[in-house]
Amino acid sequence: MASERRPRLTPPIADVRRAVRRVLERREDAPLLLVALSGGADSLALAAAAAFEAPRAGWRAGAVVVDHGLQAGSSEQADGAASVARDLGLDPVLVRRVDATAAPGGDGPEGAARAARYAALDAAAREAGAELVLLGHTLDDQAETVLLGLARGSGAASLAGMAPRNGRYARPLLGIRRADTRQACRDAGLVPWDDPHNADSAYARVRVRERVLPVLEAELGPGVAEALARTAEQLREDEQAFAEQIDEFIEEICEPAEAGIAVSAAVLAANPAALRQRIIRHVVASEFGVALTRRQTLEVARLVTDWHGQGPIDLPGCRASRAGGRIEFTAR
Amino acid sequence: MASERRPRLTPPIADVRRAVRRVLERREDAPLLLVALSGGADSLALAAAAAFEAPRAGWRAGAVVVDHGLQAGSSEQADGAASVARDLGLDPVLVRRVDATAAPGGDGPEGAARAARYAALDAAAREAGAELVLLGHTLDDQAETVLLGLARGSGAASLAGMAPRNGRYARPLLGIRRADTRQACRDAGLVPWDDPHNADSAYARVRVRERVLPVLEAELGPGVAEALARTAEQLREDEQAFAEQIDEFIEEICEPAEAGIAVSAAVLAANPAALRQRIIRHVVASEFGVALTRRQTLEVARLVTDWHGQGPIDLPGCRASRAGGRIEFTAR
Repeated sequence: MASERRPRLTPPIADVRRAVRRVLERREDAPLLLVALSGGADSLALAAAAAFEAPRAGWRAGAVVVDHGLQAGSSEQADGAASVARDLGLDPVLVRRVDATAAPGGDGPEGAARAARYAALDAAAREAGAELVLLGHTLDDQAETVLLGLARGSGAASLAGMAPRNGRYARPLLGIRRADTRQACRDAGLVPWDDPHNADSAYARVRVRERVLPVLEAELGPGVAEALARTAEQLREDEQAFAEQIDEFIEEICEPAEAGIAVSAAVLAANPAALRQRIIRHVVASEFGVALTRRQTLEVARLVTDWHGQGPIDLPGCRASRAGGRIEFTAR
Repeated sequence: MASERRPRLTPPIADVRRAVRRVLERREDAPLLLVALSGGADSLALAAAAAFEAPRAGWRAGAVVVDHGLQAGSSEQADGAASVARDLGLDPVLVRRVDATAAPGGDGPEGAARAARYAALDAAAREAGAELVLLGHTLDDQAETVLLGLARGSGAASLAGMAPRNGRYARPLLGIRRADTRQACRDAGLVPWDDPHNADSAYARVRVRERVLPVLEAELGPGVAEALARTAEQLREDEQAFAEQIDEFIEEICEPAEAGIAVSAAVLAANPAALRQRIIRHVVASEFGVALTRRQTLEVARLVTDWHGQGPIDLPGCRASRAGGRIEFTAR
């Protein structure tokens, strides 16, 4: 079995394995990782690489297949993917059926499916005692995410794409092209499943993949996807740096106010605009659970930068006003 | 003359005027501003608004027309634009002929034309004693610039677009759509000139305008251009904040080294990646005049973050190496 499956080591297979190797720190206690397997080329190539690399780094590798039940035959497809995972030597292999339509979230069907998928992955990881869950997102997925964020236009935060590491989730393939995961599957004799949703142009992500990125590559030259992924990496670092800076001093500059919180106007004024605005957004988000738009943030900032006696500003869930040397945020 | 030209105040005219008003601080000493006028709709609407707003804010308004001599009839076209500027009441109106093909710069024909244009604008501003030069770039130009930067993929710096203010140059129309400058011209009875280069798909910017942005808007919904412009604004603020932070401590953390400069490895290690990498780029740029790529920057950073005795790193124009607790940059 294993010997039949052992593929020759082609460059795409080597690339995917190396990417997996980089996220697996050498361990002596045989912790478990789970590959989130859809059966598509990306997660299938990832599963094969994890099966190969995990034991060499002292890990055990299993898989979890999430069946969204969104189309006829999804159950058989999930069982098929699970069977391939077992053939690859992954253990345990879990199949989780979720009802995406029942998931909460006002983010449309894509958002609901995503929320249901992560809930299922979280539960599976907890139950199996997995320390790490590997996700198969590639450089192409990252580029698409950046373009989708670009259309929303809220700066570095919306362009920073997906994190290579976030809690127990790791995305080892963010530097690998989708074409390479496909080739890695072919080279390994693995037959990926093509999710019909990946061709359904009702999804913005599919339109980005099939219509937007090809036009960008045709008009601006090849390398656009890589450039988008590089940009995401840098903007993620930028966001991280600002977040660390704010963490360092946020407690010092805030003080309780009646039914809310207050920030020193002088401190806000002394900081560059990028930090001032992030502080305002941070305070409102952590105190009132509200994400301010850029326009709202700038209006609050003008209580500092362009103070001429303007009145309180009504925001979702709270109100901002200047009181002497402080900007006060109070519940409405 | 002036009375014939006085247009009814339509919303696009009001928008362009308001945008100009915002950059004109009230003055008593009648300083001069020059509008960089191509005769196209953007700069023509800008010129009309400047002619109206400048005297109300205590400024004198003139214009400078740059004739690139890149096509037959460019001289007549420039003279025509100058004549319209005089009709608008602008004074002085200067026409400068430049030889773009003789301009330096390895940035292709667009880069050469741009360098020649700014050299001519600089010279005209100096000679006329102008404090301010207004450029007609619109929100659409900004969105195109962001997309062009995206294809290069060097993070916030390449996505920050054009500055609203840079020395004596101001771009009041970065929040105004090109369609509105066209409408403002129509409303004012002004006939803009369509530069044939603006339809020449040999230029990447033209391809972005005519093929990339329309696809983005069609697939991701309207508002993409505004989202790109908003992103540019925020990323410019981010870059500015990092630049200020580096300015504050760069002198403290650098010290002379033999034939170069050294930075404390501990300081680099203590800073978040975004700042560490900007410090490395800043030091090499200011000491050796070289702009490092992301790959080179990360290789240098690994002398700090992943030190395992690796040798010196050859960079364009210099070499980076670890010497005890310092990273040394020395001439090659």
